[in-house]
This record gives sequence, structure tokens and C-alpha cells, in this order.
Amino acid sequence: MADVSKRILLGRKLRSSQLGETLLPKRIALPVFASDALSSVAYAPDEVFIMLSIAGASAYVWSWKIAVAVALVMAAVIASYRQTVHAYPSGGGDYEVATVNLGRSAGTTVAAALLVDYMLTVAVSISSGANYVSAAIPALQGHEVLLAVALVVVLTAMNLRGIREAGTAFAIPTYAFMVAILGTAVVGVVRLAGGHLPHVESAQYDIVPKEGGGNLAGIALIFLLMRAFSSGCAALTGVEAISNGVPAFRRPKSKNAATTLLMLGLIAITMMLSIILLANKMGLRFVDPSDMHRLTLNGVPLGDDHTQNAVIAQVSKAVWDFFPPGFYLVVAVTGLILVLAANTAFNGFPVLGSILARDGFAPRALASRGDRLAYSNGIVFLAVMAIVLIVAFDAQTTRLIQLYIVGVFVSFNLSQLGMIRHWTRELKRVVDPATRRRMVRSRVINTVGLCFTAVVLVVVLITKFLAGAWITILAMCFFFLIMRGIRGHYDKVAAELAADEEDKVMPTRVHAIVLVSKLHKPTLRALAFAQASRPNVLEAVTVSIDDESTAGLLEEWDERHLALPLKVLHSPYRELIRPVVDYATAIKKANPRGVVAVYIPEYVVGRWWEQLLHNQTALRLKGRLLFTPGVMVISVPYQLRSSAQRARELREEIWVAPSDLRAGRAVDTHNRQIGK
Amino acid sequence: MADVSKRILLGRKLRSSQLGETLLPKRIALPVFASDALSSVAYAPDEVFIMLSIAGASAYVWSWKIAVAVALVMAAVIASYRQTVHAYPSGGGDYEVATVNLGRSAGTTVAAALLVDYMLTVAVSISSGANYVSAAIPALQGHEVLLAVALVVVLTAMNLRGIREAGTAFAIPTYAFMVAILGTAVVGVVRLAGGHLPHVESAQYDIVPKEGGGNLAGIALIFLLMRAFSSGCAALTGVEAISNGVPAFRRPKSKNAATTLLMLGLIAITMMLSIILLANKMGLRFVDPSDMHRLTLNGVPLGDDHTQNAVIAQVSKAVWDFFPPGFYLVVAVTGLILVLAANTAFNGFPVLGSILARDGFAPRALASRGDRLAYSNGIVFLAVMAIVLIVAFDAQTTRLIQLYIVGVFVSFNLSQLGMIRHWTRELKRVVDPATRRRMVRSRVINTVGLCFTAVVLVVVLITKFLAGAWITILAMCFFFLIMRGIRGHYDKVAAELAADEEDKVMPTRVHAIVLVSKLHKPTLRALAFAQASRPNVLEAVTVSIDDESTAGLLEEWDERHLALPLKVLHSPYRELIRPVVDYATAIKKANPRGVVAVYIPEYVVGRWWEQLLHNQTALRLKGRLLFTPGVMVISVPYQLRSSAQRARELREEIWVAPSDLRAGRAVDTHNRQIGK
Repeated sequence: MADVSKRILLGRKLRSSQLGETLLPKRIALPVFASDALSSVAYAPDEVFIMLSIAGASAYVWSWKIAVAVALVMAAVIASYRQTVHAYPSGGGDYEVATVNLGRSAGTTVAAALLVDYMLTVAVSISSGANYVSAAIPALQGHEVLLAVALVVVLTAMNLRGIREAGTAFAIPTYAFMVAILGTAVVGVVRLAGGHLPHVESAQYDIVPKEGGGNLAGIALIFLLMRAFSSGCAALTGVEAISNGVPAFRRPKSKNAATTLLMLGLIAITMMLSIILLANKMGLRFVDPSDMHRLTLNGVPLGDDHTQNAVIAQVSKAVWDFFPPGFYLVVAVTGLILVLAANTAFNGFPVLGSILARDGFAPRALASRGDRLAYSNGIVFLAVMAIVLIVAFDAQTTRLIQLYIVGVFVSFNLSQLGMIRHWTRELKRVVDPATRRRMVRSRVINTVGLCFTAVVLVVVLITKFLAGAWITILAMCFFFLIMRGIRGHYDKVAAELAADEEDKVMPTRVHAIVLVSKLHKPTLRALAFAQASRPNVLEAVTVSIDDESTAGLLEEWDERHLALPLKVLHSPYRELIRPVVDYATAIKKANPRGVVAVYIPEYVVGRWWEQLLHNQTALRLKGRLLFTPGVMVISVPYQLRSSAQRARELREEIWVAPSDLRAGRAVDTHNRQIGK
Repeated sequence: MADVSKRILLGRKLRSSQLGETLLPKRIALPVFASDALSSVAYAPDEVFIMLSIAGASAYVWSWKIAVAVALVMAAVIASYRQTVHAYPSGGGDYEVATVNLGRSAGTTVAAALLVDYMLTVAVSISSGANYVSAAIPALQGHEVLLAVALVVVLTAMNLRGIREAGTAFAIPTYAFMVAILGTAVVGVVRLAGGHLPHVESAQYDIVPKEGGGNLAGIALIFLLMRAFSSGCAALTGVEAISNGVPAFRRPKSKNAATTLLMLGLIAITMMLSIILLANKMGLRFVDPSDMHRLTLNGVPLGDDHTQNAVIAQVSKAVWDFFPPGFYLVVAVTGLILVLAANTAFNGFPVLGSILARDGFAPRALASRGDRLAYSNGIVFLAVMAIVLIVAFDAQTTRLIQLYIVGVFVSFNLSQLGMIRHWTRELKRVVDPATRRRMVRSRVINTVGLCFTAVVLVVVLITKFLAGAWITILAMCFFFLIMRGIRGHYDKVAAELAADEEDKVMPTRVHAIVLVSKLHKPTLRALAFAQASRPNVLEAVTVSIDDESTAGLLEEWDERHLALPLKVLHSPYRELIRPVVDYATAIKKANPRGVVAVYIPEYVVGRWWEQLLHNQTALRLKGRLLFTPGVMVISVPYQLRSSAQRARELREEIWVAPSDLRAGRAVDTHNRQIGK
């Protein structure tokens, strides 16, 4: 039953015995890697307007300048990452750049920032997406939390099923989003030029400045503008994705990646500027959703249950007032791209986990392929954290944004700093003047990038610390300490396990005992396997917990004329495990240079509930015997009929690790199903 | 940290390397086995009064007659169990009697009834106990659910710690309860004789009959009396305990057990009759706690937040009005004995589980000793079910009682029927006239018992089916089907595993492969152990997921001059498990009559979180290899330093199974700690 419901929820298991190895042309790479970065255009303008609204609608005159400032920072960051792309064509990303150039602590800090970031990416994108969906379907208004949670659950299920970013699947909605937004911008600008630009729905309202927010000047005004600017910097999230994906590009990889980055930057800046321009011209009024009473209509405050649509939704609704399908298309593709952006986090999270595991900062099992379990655990963990964030912050993008940007900029800063170090080191090595000139130029670009991102980080910390960034910093510290602890543990174990020269003592003899509870096929097989191994001593051993059944077993044993004697260990207190452990210990003590081999017959069953009914004692016994030095435990499996089906399933189930995408494999084809 | 908190919650681990074997004198056996049965006196009278109150206070004239009817049934049941005690001195209880005489289905039905009963024993006793506690501490009134849940949690923690019914620990509160109740009865009767018997606190109220409940006559009246009678039969729960405990009695076991049963019956009947007599004389008014508005004071209904104290609390408060400590003593020991009664369920549940496991109706792992895990799971399961019941029924004993009695009487009936069969069969065998006479008499007694319990069961089903008994019956069916399913599965597996004559094919050769990931101590140990086993072929095998580290490993391998070659399995897709499984399968195919021995080096670590960081791949690999026929998996453990502490703990931790109590061992002494 559990199996059926799992099938319904998760779908047929993914089968594929060959991964295609396709490299991406730029036109596919752009949408694959840009959905996260472009989608932030869907919420960054809203945040700028919300912050400015604190001082009333008059402060909206600043929105345009803030947008330009954000665009400048973005240009600097894009320029910086173009250097990274050339320097690290392996696609290690910020984590590698920081680790290689600044050391383990910096790398771990970046990793902690990224982990927190992935959670927030899901929470922010999905919350924002839910708001777009409710803009298109008014019946859903007021149920954004439920909707967002449902979207996360659907996304989780899809990812557990094994759906991942395939080139074309990503290309279409991302291009649709670009076309929709840029199309809206063009139509809007044309209508503006013709003097026919209508007002948005919220133009009729007035904004009451927040208490103490009216007529700001001096430091208070600067602080407000800084807050608006740092919120607008949410538009920068996700631009680092291309630098992780260099190996997936067609040759020349670095050059193509750099070009794609430039295209991404131009498109994102254009979109953001045009949305903010149009919103301003169309009389947008936009406040914090929890402050809805600050919107007034003819002097009367709106109720707190009034819902305002997202900026893009309002703008496109007005721009396309002559052609309503235009509005629905914009809102639909915006919602879709936000969900896709969240999906990139579902892919990135386990990839980062495997990189961290490779370096010993996460459980090593995460590093290996085929670990569906670890991958699924990562997805479920990410989903749970995102849902917690969504529920805790009421699916309000504005409140989540406060937590979001700090992690991104911590990672930007350390990455830029690492790049500067990188160029400085390279310059010491290189003598060719042309190369040196290029490197110096790159270092200048990265330094400028660092200056910009450092300023933004400081601004973000100042303006957002109390608003929620402290939570992010706390969470980053938590992950940092966990990762350091894991690495410390692995280092300690490695030191303890390092082979030295004395380790060549060979055991001289093997004393084998076969555990017998009943005389059935699994036992006979274990006996046969043990005999085939020809140990120095071979005994069959049974634990007697009641005399009657032991007598029966002995009788059967004699009837079968089995070649070896059956030793009975008496257990007056009906324990099964201690007598065996004690016996093995005693043998080992008598022969300190020998090895004790304990053969345990095991049933292999196919269904999880059958597992509960079998092998539990064997499992516990094995667990205990492992603690006894000089004992090896041999499982002799006997495959029951029900195991055959499960064995077939296990054979067919190849787990396609998402890291293959980032590593340049299998973008188009890894999702196809071969055979049945 | 988890370990510390576990220690605080569960206490030091129980250590004991010797179980005392003490048999119980009657004076200790009575309290040990009677707490459950006697404690039902604490709530049975309440239920009688509540049912009668439907027709108003005038119906209370029937309470006395109903009490006599319940006493008669109890006498019949006690007499019946005295026969069982003689016939089954092994203490198998109702489950054994039903299984042996009526077959597996009857036995399974009894087991299902008992499982449900244990849950309800905890829920009813604790709910009732919570009401007593809140009677003594008025501040707790209205918080009975919370209190009851807290009591279950405390009881669970105590049982997980390993506290179990020790003779003296049980003797004192049980005797105190008898003394308190009988003392109250004597004082009450003396004051009644002297004409000084005061009224109880509720005597001032009037009862408004329930809608349609006034002036009942004919069938309606009979139905009401039947309901009151079946509720009163709650007093019979727990009388079967002695018949399970016969082996724990001093010789002559059966005779002593029968005498103790008689004493139990006399005491319980005396207590119940005197409580109901006194309550009647003292003008008690008692209604369903959810119908509090039907109590009126001078014609004005009481609010629904009025709390009425339990009958024993009201009676003892009035009887001891000249000496308040008397009241507090009665309430305290009543609360205590109710908790003790719940505790018997915590002991009985895993015992029944182990008996069912022995017979193949429950996972076989539950049958073995030393299974702290299975025992703990049972306790936690019982606690969770009890808490669900308490919360669902708002800790109202009255509502829980509706579910309670049906299971008890199903088991009574099947047990009596089994006894009749038993005597009939024995009579066919025995010729000695004196013995035959005794057997015929026993059969008559059991037949009378069956008649009584059958009538009660029918009454209970008629009157309580819609009030909640259907839930019990559904739950019983559920457990019945689960148990049948498990047994069916075990039977099927046993048939599949039965050894036949062809099973003597001996494998001819052993092909051993040692898995190598790094060249450290665990690997060297695995290599040494494998070499000591002298297989026909021995290879070291490594899976190459990246060329660089494989090259390093090969170099190290050569440096060490290890005698055997290292085979490299290439894994272009970075899988670890599939290449090994494929390789083992290929070897097996090439040598169908050979065995493949896969040696896996394993780290043994001491702490659970270390487990998460190690061996995960080894664990999955083992899981997969078990499905490959002809392969045996050899774990070669390497004990890390951190494992030593855990190994010591495991050595010291002997789990004292509760079944030893029922089996006649270790009543007084099994809880003592030997050494440190």
C-alpha cells in the first residue's frame, strides 16, 4: 500500500542506462542558467517601492535613481564574474574561488551562505510566485501561504520524481518571460510616447507616510534610500549561476560563458529599469502588505484585507488593457519563472552537498553517485525549511527579502576578494606583458566589483540587521560550525586510521562459527559457504532459550548427518545476543592472533514490512559483534522469492545525479527514459 | 547532547547480571496482581450513578440492586478463573486457554481484545486518576486532559527507565488503598448506625432527567438498567491477572493462586457494595460530566464549568469531615492505585507481544530477550495510543468506559468457552471417579461463568455499541487481521525455506574480493583477514570515480609492496555501488558453483552522529549485494577509539525482560543494581 501511494506521489522510477553528453549553445545556456537571476526582476522593483512608500508617494521620485544604482552594482558584479569565468573554467563557483584563494574558513563561510541562500531562494521565489498567481486568480487572494506551501510540495514531489532542468523545458518559459516583460516595456514606452499610457489600478490611492516617515531629510532620508537600495539589490541574486556552469558551455567555454553573462546582465538591467520607469509614470502606489491601511482612497484608509497586486502585474494589466490576454500571459510566465527559479535551488542544494562532502564538510555519503536517499533527504530538508520560512513570514516576499540578500552578498564579497588574490598570485608567476596587462585589468575589475559589493553588504547589514538579517547570520554561523565540526571529525578519524608500518601482522588462523536457529535452507547455505571457506576450525552454534526446541533441533541435526557438530550455548535468561558475543570474545581471547568468523544466515525479502518481520535479531547481533575486536561478520543471504522483484527494481534504478548538469553532461537527454 | 538528554529523561541504564528467582507468598501476590482489578472500584460506581441519573435521582434506588448484580457476575467470573488456575498452572492466561481449546482464530481474537484492552486500561485508569488528583488539588480542575497526558508521559518515562512492578513497591499502595476504602466504609457504616452520617457535597443538588429520561417504565427502564449494569461491570476488569501469574506463586501454586483470587473477589465486592451503599445513603447526585447543567441548585442549573468530584472522593470527604487528612489519604491512594493499574498495562503489553511473537503472530524479534528496542517501541506505542484516546475523549472516564468493557468480556467469554472444552476433553481421558467428579463440577462452574459473561457481553454490545464499542470492535478486527497476516507471512516463508534433500550442493571454490577505497588501517585489516581465510582467488578491488585519486591509491599500493594486485573498476558516472554489484555478479556467472566473498572494511564508531558520517556507502552496498545470489558479504570491523566507550556500555546493558515477572522470576530482586 505504501508502495502504491509512493508510486502515485513520486511516479515511476527513473530509468536510464546512458547519460548523454551534450554541451550547451549560448541560446540554451542563457535560459538554463538565467532563470534565477531574471526572476528576481519580478520582486526587486516591488521592494524598492515598498521601502520608499514609508516616506509617502512623493519619495517615488527616488525610485528611478535607486534603480540606476542597482543597475550599476549589477554591471560591476557581472563584469567581475566575467573575470571569474575566465579564471575558473572548471565551474567551481564562489565556494571554490573562496576556498582556493582565501582558505578553508572563507570557503566554509561561502558554503554556509549558499546553503541558507538556497532555502531563501525557494521561500522568496515561491512566495512571490504565489502572489502572481493570486493576482491572476482573484479567488486565491488571501490564501497565499497555502498556495505557496502547495507549490513547494508540488515542486518537491516533482524533484523527488526526478524531473530536473532540461534545456528546452527551461528555455521556453525563460524566453517567454523575457518576451513578455520586454514586450510589455516596449508597448508601454510606445503608449507613453503617444500619450496614451493609462494609470495602474493603484494610482487612485494616496499613501499616508509611516509614522515619522513624512518629509524626511538628511540622515533619515539617506537611511531610507539605503534601505530601498539594499532591497532593490535583490535583483542581483542568481547572477553567479553561470560561473558555476562554465563546463556546460560549448567551446570556447569561458568566452561563451562570459558573453552569456553579459547578455544576462543587459537583459536584467533593461527589464528592471523599464518596469520601474513605467510604474512611476503610471502612478503606482505600493506599500508593505502588512500596512495596507496606509493606502487611502479619498482620504479613507483601505481595509487591511485589501490585496495589492505585484508591480509587474499592475503595470502589465494597465499596459495591456486593450488586450487582456497580454496581462494573463505576463502574469502566467512570471509565476512560472519564479517556480523555475525555486527549482534551481532544488538542483543546487544537493550539488553543493556533494561538493562539500567531497571536501569533508558534509557526510561523505553525499559525495557518491547513486545516492538517491541522500539526494531525496536534501530535497525534503530544503522543502521543509522553505515551508517553515513561508509560514513564519506569512508568504510575504517583503519580509523574506530582509533575510535574503545578506547571504548573497557575503558570498559575492568573499568571491571577489578571492579573485583579487588569484590575480595577484598569478601576476607573480606570469611574465608575458600582454597577459599581465589583461590580468591587471581583471584585478581592477574585481576590485571595483568588491568595492561595490562591500558597500552593498555594509548597507544591507546596517539597514536589514534588525529586520531579519540577524536570522540569516545566525543560520550561517550554525551551518558553518556544523561543517567545521564534521571536517574536524573526519580529520581526526583519518589521523587515527592512517596506516603505519606495524600494521602488517597477519592473523594466523580462522575460527569460524555458523549461527543456527533452525535447520532450513538459509542455515544450510550458510553451512555450505562456511565449509567452502575451509577455516581452521568450523563449528555450528545454536543459542538454547528453551530446552524443548533445542532438543528438536539437535535431533534434526543428527538425522541430516551433517558433518560438523552443533554446539549449544545455554541462555537461561533467553538472551540471544550476549551468549554469541561472549562466545566469540572467548574464542578470540584463547587465540589472540586468530580471527573469529561469525556466519549469519539472513533472509532477503523484497518489501519493507517484510524487513520488519525478519532479520531484526541478526541485525542487532551484527551491530554488537562489530564492537568485538578480531571478529568478522559474514552475512550469508538467502533470497526469498519476494526479493526477486525488488532486485529487478534495484537493478533498473540508476540515479541520475543532478551534478551532471553542472558538470556539463546530460542537459538535454538525461531525463529520457530508455526502454521500459 | 542527545545522549545527555536521554540520560536525564531515562536515567542510568539498568544493570543486573543475575536475576533472583523468588516466588511470591500470597500476601505479596495479592497486591502485585490485584491492583488493576481493585482499582476499577474507583470508577465503576461512578458509571452506575451516571447511567441511572439519566432518569433522575429517583432512579438511584436501583443502584444497590445493580451493584448486587455486578457482584454476582464477579463472583461467577472469580469462581471460573479459580478453575482455570487449577487447569493451567503454567499461567498462559486467556490467550493460551482460547488457543489450546478453541483454535488459533479464537486465540488471536483474545489477543486482539487484550491489545485493545491494554490501551484502554491506561486511558481509563489515568483519566480516572487525573480526576482524583484534581479533586484533591482544586487548582487542577478543568485541566484533567493535560494532567492525564502528563501522567502517561511520566509513566512512559518511568517504564522506559526500567522501573517495573516490584513486590513491595506494589504491596504498600495496594494495601493502603484497601485499608483506605474499607476504613472509609467502616467509619461510614458506624456513623450511619449512629445516625451521624453526613451528606456528600452534591446532596444539595437536584438532577433534571435527561430529555425523555423521566419516569421511565417498561422496556425503556430495563434498557437503562442494562446500561447501568454494563457500565458497572467495569469493576470486573483486571480479575484475570492472577490466572496469568500462577507460576509466580509459592507452592502449592494453583491452590495459593485460587485462594488469592477468592480474597481478591471478596475484597473487590465488599468495596464496591459499601461505596454504593454509602453514596446512596449520603444523598449523592452524580451526572455525566458533559451534562453538568442537568444538576440544579434550588432549580437553577449549574454551569457547564462546574466540576463534580468522583464518588469515592465525595463519600470520603463527607465521611472524614471530622478528620480531613483521612479524605486526602483516600484520594491520594486511589489516584496512586489507578496509576499503578495503568502501569500493569505497560508491563503486560510487551509480555503479550513476546508471547504473540513466539507463536508467529507478531514480528519474531519481539520474542527474544534483551530486545530493549522492541520493548521500548511497545511502551511508546501504548503511550501514544493512550494519549490519543485521552485527548479524543477529553479524559472523561465515562466516555472511555463505553469502549472498555467489550474487549474484556470478549476475552472472558472465549476463555470460559475454552475451559468448558478443556474439561470435556479431560473427562474423556480420565477414569478416576473422584477426579471426574471434580472436573464435572469445574465444568459446571465454567458453564455458569460463561452464561453470566455471555449475558453481560450481549448487554454490553446492545447498550454500548453506538456509544463507542464499535470503535473497539473495529480496532480488534484491525489487530486480528494484522496478526493473521503476519502469521500467514511466516508460514509462507517457512514453507519456502523448509530444507529438502537437494540442499546439499557444496560450493566448490571461494572467490574473494576486498573493497579498497583508501589504504588505511581498516583496509589493511580487511586484507589481512581475507588472506587468513585463504580463498581460492583473492583480489583487492577499488572503484575509480576520479582518475587522480585512483592514481594516488595505486602508487601507495605499490609502495607498500602488498602481495596481491589491486583491480580498478572504472565508474564513469561516479557510482560506487553498481560497479561492485556488477563485478560480483560477473564472477558468480563465470563460476556458477563458486561463492563470491566480498570483504568490506568498516569503521566502528561509538556515537550515533558518527554513524551518519561513516559507513553509509558500505551499508547501502551490503544491502544491494544481499540481493545477488551466491554472494556473501563480510564486514571486517575496525574499532575506532570512540567505539570503546560504547562497547563498554553495550556490555553492561542487560535488558531485564518484564516477562520474567509473569514467568515467576525476579519479582523482588530484578530491579536491584549489581556493581556499577
